[in-house]
Order: sequence, then C-alpha cells, then structure tokens
Amino acid sequence: MKHTMLAVFFFLSGTALPGFSQATQPAVVEDFKPSALNQPGQEYPQVNSQGYARFRVKAPYADTVKVNLGGQGGPYLTKGADGFWTGMTEKPLDEGFHYYHLAIDGGRFNDPGALSFFGWARWESGLETPAHDQDFYALKDVPHGHVQQILFPSKSTQTSRRAFVYTPPGYEKETAKKYPVLYLQHGRGENETSWSNQGRANLIMDNLIAEGKIKPFIIVMTYGMTNEVTGRINDFNIAPFQTVLVDELIPYVDAHFRTLTDRANRAMAGLSMGGMETRLITLNKPEVFGSYGLLSGGVYSADDLKGKPKPKLIFLSCGSKEYPDRIQKAVADLKAAGYPAVSHVSENTAHEFQTWRRSLRDLAPLLFKN
Amino acid sequence: MKHTMLAVFFFLSGTALPGFSQATQPAVVEDFKPSALNQPGQEYPQVNSQGYARFRVKAPYADTVKVNLGGQGGPYLTKGADGFWTGMTEKPLDEGFHYYHLAIDGGRFNDPGALSFFGWARWESGLETPAHDQDFYALKDVPHGHVQQILFPSKSTQTSRRAFVYTPPGYEKETAKKYPVLYLQHGRGENETSWSNQGRANLIMDNLIAEGKIKPFIIVMTYGMTNEVTGRINDFNIAPFQTVLVDELIPYVDAHFRTLTDRANRAMAGLSMGGMETRLITLNKPEVFGSYGLLSGGVYSADDLKGKPKPKLIFLSCGSKEYPDRIQKAVADLKAAGYPAVSHVSENTAHEFQTWRRSLRDLAPLLFKN
Repeated sequence: MKHTMLAVFFFLSGTALPGFSQATQPAVVEDFKPSALNQPGQEYPQVNSQGYARFRVKAPYADTVKVNLGGQGGPYLTKGADGFWTGMTEKPLDEGFHYYHLAIDGGRFNDPGALSFFGWARWESGLETPAHDQDFYALKDVPHGHVQQILFPSKSTQTSRRAFVYTPPGYEKETAKKYPVLYLQHGRGENETSWSNQGRANLIMDNLIAEGKIKPFIIVMTYGMTNEVTGRINDFNIAPFQTVLVDELIPYVDAHFRTLTDRANRAMAGLSMGGMETRLITLNKPEVFGSYGLLSGGVYSADDLKGKPKPKLIFLSCGSKEYPDRIQKAVADLKAAGYPAVSHVSENTAHEFQTWRRSLRDLAPLLFKN
Repeated sequence: MKHTMLAVFFFLSGTALPGFSQATQPAVVEDFKPSALNQPGQEYPQVNSQGYARFRVKAPYADTVKVNLGGQGGPYLTKGADGFWTGMTEKPLDEGFHYYHLAIDGGRFNDPGALSFFGWARWESGLETPAHDQDFYALKDVPHGHVQQILFPSKSTQTSRRAFVYTPPGYEKETAKKYPVLYLQHGRGENETSWSNQGRANLIMDNLIAEGKIKPFIIVMTYGMTNEVTGRINDFNIAPFQTVLVDELIPYVDAHFRTLTDRANRAMAGLSMGGMETRLITLNKPEVFGSYGLLSGGVYSADDLKGKPKPKLIFLSCGSKEYPDRIQKAVADLKAAGYPAVSHVSENTAHEFQTWRRSLRDLAPLLFKN
C-alpha cells in the first residue's frame, strides 16, 4: 500500500521537486502565526508575512497526506516521528482567503485545525493569508451592524428559504429612516453564508460607514441555486431563481425591513456565477434594479442595455490575474455609449474572495448616490 | 503498519464482537435515509426509523476508520473493494442530535458527508436520528422569527463579542410593542451558535408561537467562556462572564431591541455548564433576572435563595438517563419551602441536545406569565 502511494506521489509532484522550485522563491521569513480562521486554540495551519502557509496534521498511521488549495497548489506533507504530518506551500499564496482540504489515504477530509466555509459545493477548510490592505475588513472597535438570518416563504419552491440581511449600525434606533438595498450574490459552489463568512461583507460595511465613506444601506444575501447545474454553466436556467428573488424575497424584505423600494434605491451585484445571475436578472427586470455589479462575473455591452431603463451605475471588476483587459474595454465601450460604467481591478489576486472583498469596498461608495 | 492497527482494533473493540452484541438488539428495519444534517447532496451518514446509523467514508488507502459518537458508542468501519469504508452503529442511538467524528489512521477528522456543529470544544460532525416528537422542532410553513448576529462592545475583554438574538415573528411590524428576554446559555465545549444550530431554538419558538402556546419573547445567546477552564470545573470563575453578560450584553440588547427591562421580564437559563453559570449569576444578581432555568445543569436549594428577591419561576430539567430523581426531589423541596418550582424530565434521553430541545419547549410556556 505504501509503495503504491509513493508512486502516485512522484507522478503527481512531477516538476515541482523540492529544492528546485524553491530556488526561484524568496527566503522564507520565520514569522509564522496561526491562520486567523483556525478553530479555537489550534496552532496550525500557520501563515507568514510573505503568504507561505504551513500545515500540521495528526495521522500517525496514514500513508499520504496532501494539502489541496485548488488553483493555489498545495504540498504533500511529510510524516514526523511524533505521528504529525507537516509541510509548507511551495510558494507564497495570494493575499486573502483560500479554500482547501486534505487528501488523506485517497479520501477528502477537512483540516481539523481550521474552520470550514461553504465553497466548492461543500463546507471546505479555510485559510487566511495576511494582506497589505487587510485593515478594511478587520474587526474593529466601531459600531457594528447586525446580520440577520431570515426564513422567507417561497411558494415557487414550496419551502421556507434562508437569507442573511445586513442592517447597518443605527438601524434599530433611527426608526423613521428608510434604507436602500443591495442584493448580493455568491458564486457557484458557494451559498448564502459565503459573503458574510469568507467575504466579511458586514465588517467591510461597518468600517466604510465608520469612516463616513458610504451612505448606509442594507445588504441581502440568499442562495442563488447555483449548485444545481448538472450540465454546462450556459445551460443554467435563471427563471427559478429570478422568481425566488424578485417575486418572493424582495417583497418579504420590503415588508419586514425599512427599505426604500424604488428602482434607484435597489441594486444587484454578484461574484462569478452570481455575476452571471445578476446580468440576466437585471436585464430581464431593469425596472426592479437601478444599479448593477458584476464581480469576476462577465460584462454588459451597450447592446444588452438598448431600449431598457438606463442603469444608474454599472460596476465591473475582477482580479489582475483574471481578465482585466476585458473589464476595462467593456467599461470604455459602455462609457462611449453614454452609460455610467466603472471598472475595478484587484491587484495580484485571482478568482478568489480577496478580489471580491475589494470589489465590495470599491462598489459600496458608488451606490445610491443622489 | 497494517498489523499494528489490527492489534489496536481488537484491543479497543474488546467485548463488542460482531454478532454477539447484535443478538440482543431488534432486527434492523431497512428504511435508512440520509441524516437531516448532511452536507448538500450527501447520501451518508444515514439513519433509520429505529435510530440505527450507517456510515460510508471514502479512504481507499487507510488502515482503520472508526466512528466516535462519544457516549453513544460508534462502530469500526469495514473497507469494501470500492475503497469505501462502511458500517452501522452497534445499537439504536437515542433520539435527536449527536456529535461525532471519525478516527482515521490515528487522526481525528470530521465526516465529509455531514455538517459540523460546535461541541466538544471544536466543530464536530453532527448526526440527527428521527424522534417520535420531532414535529416540535421541524421547519414548518409558519411565520418565522429572525436570528440576528450582533457584535457588542466589551470593555472588560477589550473586543467586540458575538451573540445571536432571536426576535419573534411580528417583531418588525409591531413597532410599539416591547418584549421579555430570555438569556440562554450553551454547555461546556459549545458556543453561541449551539442553541440555534443543534438546539433549533428559533424553530421551537416559531412553532410554539404559531400554535398560540406562548407569549412571544426574545432569546439572546452568547458565548459563556466555558471552554477556558483549565482545571476542574469547580475552579471556574464566573466573574468575567458575569461582567460580560450583565454589564455589557444586557445594556446593548436593551438599547438595540425593544425589550421590557424589569426583572419580571428577564429570564436566564442554561444547559449543563451553562446551567451552572445560570445558577451562579442569578444568585449573584437576583435583582436582574426574575426566572431561572437549569437544564441538566444542577439544582437550587431553598437555602440558596434565602433572603433574596423571590424568583417568579425555577425550572429544573434533565434526561431520564441522567438524574431525574435529584431534579424531582429538589423541586419538591423548593415547593415545600414556598418557591414556584417546576421539573421536566425528557424520556429516554441522556446529556444531549434532545433533552434540551424538549426542556426549552416546556420552559417557554411557563415564562413571563402575568
């Protein structure tokens, strides 16, 4: 059994022989600390200031333990005499949040040291590497909004569906005030918990509000039914989710929260496949939403928008490691056609949550301006 | 390595040889369904109408895979030719919620098929066995309250602390109405998420309110700092948590929610070590709380209460597999001394969440009566 696994090891590691790939990387700085997303009291995984991550997993009788960080790679771990498997990423990870899991003896398990986050269509382990701009999503001593779990009736799906609603600080006290609303969608493989848990949307908002950078608004996050695609993503039928969102969730939110209900005060944005949903729904229901955001989620063309009520804002973003040229060209074309479009590129990030945290930070101040 | 593990297997399984312990159990009914707490789309673990649980875990190169359900036992799994390990509990589990994890090759991992719940001082896998009375905590087509995550400032611990606040259906609309509040504590190894996630406190309340069985009230659930005990449980110092609860959380809740703030309209209850906290804090601060509940969390004596403001209600409960005689004797003694005490015993359950779900169901109608 051991021999079989060693064969697999060498086959998979291929060109990334130890000492070889390391040679092109900076020297590792010994300032490792537990990841901010560890389970209580857990020392591992650890991350350092450069973005290297170290892992330590107890499994004394296992034959192989590998870390799988998706597009960010992930090392095979080495067993020590104490029964713990340890190892470090081959290179610094991008800044911010990463999903990962462990491959142990051919099975897929979460790291017992880390908290779990819903992504890749399951609760995966999460790892947080320090970012130069992490202050904007840090938990600070400022007034905090609340995040409410609501269960809203859905006739079309014959169940009570869950959503999370961020209400800004002061919402409970300023009882005469009504607020604009952003409907904010997760990506494929994620769900209604993702924007709060890994996106830290509530803390981003709390901090922007404390700094006076935005007009307070409500955010509503629900499950976009994006994990029920069996075929190609282009075969996804938007109709069931559009019904839930527009005919069931919006009326519930408008009845239970102090919202401004005109188009100018309702926005929709989404990341990745949530951007695809945003594009389809805003084009189908332009009378419902006044501002649109696609975060690593494609673009609008002037042709898409022709003959429809004009949006107040079109926000297109992605990471610099994605397709910034496409975003910037689309925005230039939209502007030339007379549309209020803005682009945002997150530096040195890929199709991951750091791109979308930054996108929310930059989108929020542009929304609901008079 | 394989041989070592087999030795461990026989040593640990000891008297529970297959076929022997089974003989005293009823025939297994083949009506297994996925546990209600599985990850999306996962077929295993499964449970049947008798409370047997079956497990199926992929780990083709592992040497041993064992299920650990704590006091409820847990089987060693057997590897099939397909690389999946399967097995069934030795006996039917008690009704309701159970924590568990997998021991794989000497390490401790969660079951990739199940959702995780905070207990045993970490996020553990959760399993739900059918209960004859599961209707009272089912998700039904009734009006649902909201569960709000709040981050309240805590000077004594120099951070923003998290709590969850259940507000009953109608709270948003009846803006002139004020509500009584129950402060409800989890047990040792658990945290502020436990009463909502595994306790289903919000659904129990929604259902009781829909049936007109209770006067709607607010529930506040925060972390009782119970996992920071390094020595014996009796060495636990209640002072830091009492400060957080009484001097920081209650003022925040009373400022941000429409609460009735007199003693008669504020109750405290807790399960297990949360009961111990409830007893200590209500005895230290009898002017703050009017009703007390200890759920598998000890008892009050008349001596404890002498010379203090008289409670409106003392509720003592436990499972029939715990210490019902002690609960019932304490209640008889309290009544004889003129105190309004009530006991509740959950039939055929132990020190687990089914006992506490039933306790909340039976406590709620007794609270805040005029």
